Amino acid sequence: MNIRTIDWKNNKVRLIDQTKLPEKLVYLNIDNLKDLWQAIKIMQVRGAPALGAASALGVYLGVRDYKGNTWLGFQRRLKNAAQYIASSRPTARNLFLGIERVIAVALKNRECPISKIKQSILKEAKMIMQEDMLSCRKIGYYGAKLLQNNSNILTICNAGILATIDYGTALGVLYWAVSKGKRIKVYSSETRPLLQGSRLTAWELNKQGVDVTMIADNTAAKLMQEQKIDLVITGADCIAANGDSANKIGTLNLAILCKYHKIPFYVAVPRSTFDFKIKSGKDILIEMRDPSEVTKIMFKRLVAPQGVKVLNPAFDITNHELITAIITDQGIIRPPYKKNIMKILKVI
Amino acid sequence: MNIRTIDWKNNKVRLIDQTKLPEKLVYLNIDNLKDLWQAIKIMQVRGAPALGAASALGVYLGVRDYKGNTWLGFQRRLKNAAQYIASSRPTARNLFLGIERVIAVALKNRECPISKIKQSILKEAKMIMQEDMLSCRKIGYYGAKLLQNNSNILTICNAGILATIDYGTALGVLYWAVSKGKRIKVYSSETRPLLQGSRLTAWELNKQGVDVTMIADNTAAKLMQEQKIDLVITGADCIAANGDSANKIGTLNLAILCKYHKIPFYVAVPRSTFDFKIKSGKDILIEMRDPSEVTKIMFKRLVAPQGVKVLNPAFDITNHELITAIITDQGIIRPPYKKNIMKILKVI
Repeated sequence: MNIRTIDWKNNKVRLIDQTKLPEKLVYLNIDNLKDLWQAIKIMQVRGAPALGAASALGVYLGVRDYKGNTWLGFQRRLKNAAQYIASSRPTARNLFLGIERVIAVALKNRECPISKIKQSILKEAKMIMQEDMLSCRKIGYYGAKLLQNNSNILTICNAGILATIDYGTALGVLYWAVSKGKRIKVYSSETRPLLQGSRLTAWELNKQGVDVTMIADNTAAKLMQEQKIDLVITGADCIAANGDSANKIGTLNLAILCKYHKIPFYVAVPRSTFDFKIKSGKDILIEMRDPSEVTKIMFKRLVAPQGVKVLNPAFDITNHELITAIITDQGIIRPPYKKNIMKILKVI
Repeated sequence: MNIRTIDWKNNKVRLIDQTKLPEKLVYLNIDNLKDLWQAIKIMQVRGAPALGAASALGVYLGVRDYKGNTWLGFQRRLKNAAQYIASSRPTARNLFLGIERVIAVALKNRECPISKIKQSILKEAKMIMQEDMLSCRKIGYYGAKLLQNNSNILTICNAGILATIDYGTALGVLYWAVSKGKRIKVYSSETRPLLQGSRLTAWELNKQGVDVTMIADNTAAKLMQEQKIDLVITGADCIAANGDSANKIGTLNLAILCKYHKIPFYVAVPRSTFDFKIKSGKDILIEMRDPSEVTKIMFKRLVAPQGVKVLNPAFDITNHELITAIITDQGIIRPPYKKNIMKILKVI
């Protein structure tokens, strides 16, 4: 089944409303910046690569009805749109990458007529989507080599189709392996608080015909103890120059459990996930999200005492020493990371 | 605030309906075996020591309206009541302990008039409650010595008032420490799938004025990484002769995280939790519970694809090597466990 998470269709951003999954597959058609901001904020669209496309398209939505014809006026509008969309999830690195790319293109074309500049922004946003589609397949190609036939795989959150344009990073590796005839069994950790593992990962693996079993996050250690897991693979939101990796809260848990049980722990990401300016995980800013995500389940029934204190970080940092290898669209990176990241990603 | 989880009042079993917490504090008054079976099954009452009292009282409810006057007829009724209540949660060790005790008392009094035997059963059930109340306070007394002033403590599930008659095992240690003037900060892991950590532990710590912060289970590793946790303390459902400990799914996770971060991991239990006939954790039977606990949140909104496979074990086994000490009502047991369990619990 072909699923496309985010697209540009009929002059609108067309995206799957991920808050409606797994109950209903509903597409949103968004034609203005404010609605897109909201969709990102409440995670109707989420996942690092998908957000990169969303922010670029968002900037386009924010400038396309600009009526003036001066670069200065356009530039002000562009800046406002960029700042506004960036404020939807201020620690999401890919939001900024998408914005930076369309702004760079606009600047490059600043001498052109405004209509031309607008077109160049839309074209760049589409290019971001194209690149991600290719990049995910490359990650799949490289990563699938690490999977034996009949592997039992544990993953957390959603680093799949629904986190990217149409294929996935960590799950892309699984899709590639399956397409090459490998048999796999996947355990999907439900991923509290927002349950991306059960709502999204179990949903898309099911749709793609991959054997998937859901577990509560608490069940991971028991599965490993019983030797039911051969490897863990996750995505990442940001990787520092030394390989420290920020990903969904709970990822660090799994990496430590892997270390203890001597199970490989892999991270699968496109090159854009690396931030070479960040030296180590200590310098990665962690988004703190609303307590109600924990005290209420999917914002409905209260499952904790009224007014209880809650600590709700969205991500944690997995020290590079816990990571067996980082699978990228440029190849597989193994320790020592500081050196090999530079080498394989050809950072100058 | 005095809270009594289970009691015998007005010829009925009076218990807090824990499925209604934290929204409402509702007491159930149960006067027949069938309703008590149901209350145990759906966890309106839960927690190892509370279940020991519940099963003993359940046997009494099952026999008290026996109209005959022969031991043989009474014995048949007794056996039926015992088997029926035992089937409510067939792997809960304390259910059986409660049943065994009242059956032993009945057997001892078999020559007495039936009305006298009935009274002896009720008396024994009340004794089980009295003993638990004392036992929890002894656990508190011994365990509190392990807590420094200003400790930051993480716990999982509910090993508190609501798991016992009125004081708690792991949380009893905290209550004792607080009553002696120690300042503590508690993190309560929400404990998916049934959320006892948020619904019950956060609720009762709040009521008792103890500083508590809720986290998703996934957040534990991050807190330890940031050195925000000084120790972990949990209850247990069953401890084998070698110290291997069965407790709520997710406990093993925490024990491994403690090992990695060099944080003490304590288990607090009454003597009755030990099963000396069980050599190691491998021989402890793990209850598998209904998938809907994971796919639906508190049995309501579906948060996973219809029909998805689910693995939902209720407990996991923490290897004794991961346990820093076992706090009991007879004193603190440290490794080597096999030897010291026998010594401190005076097992002959």
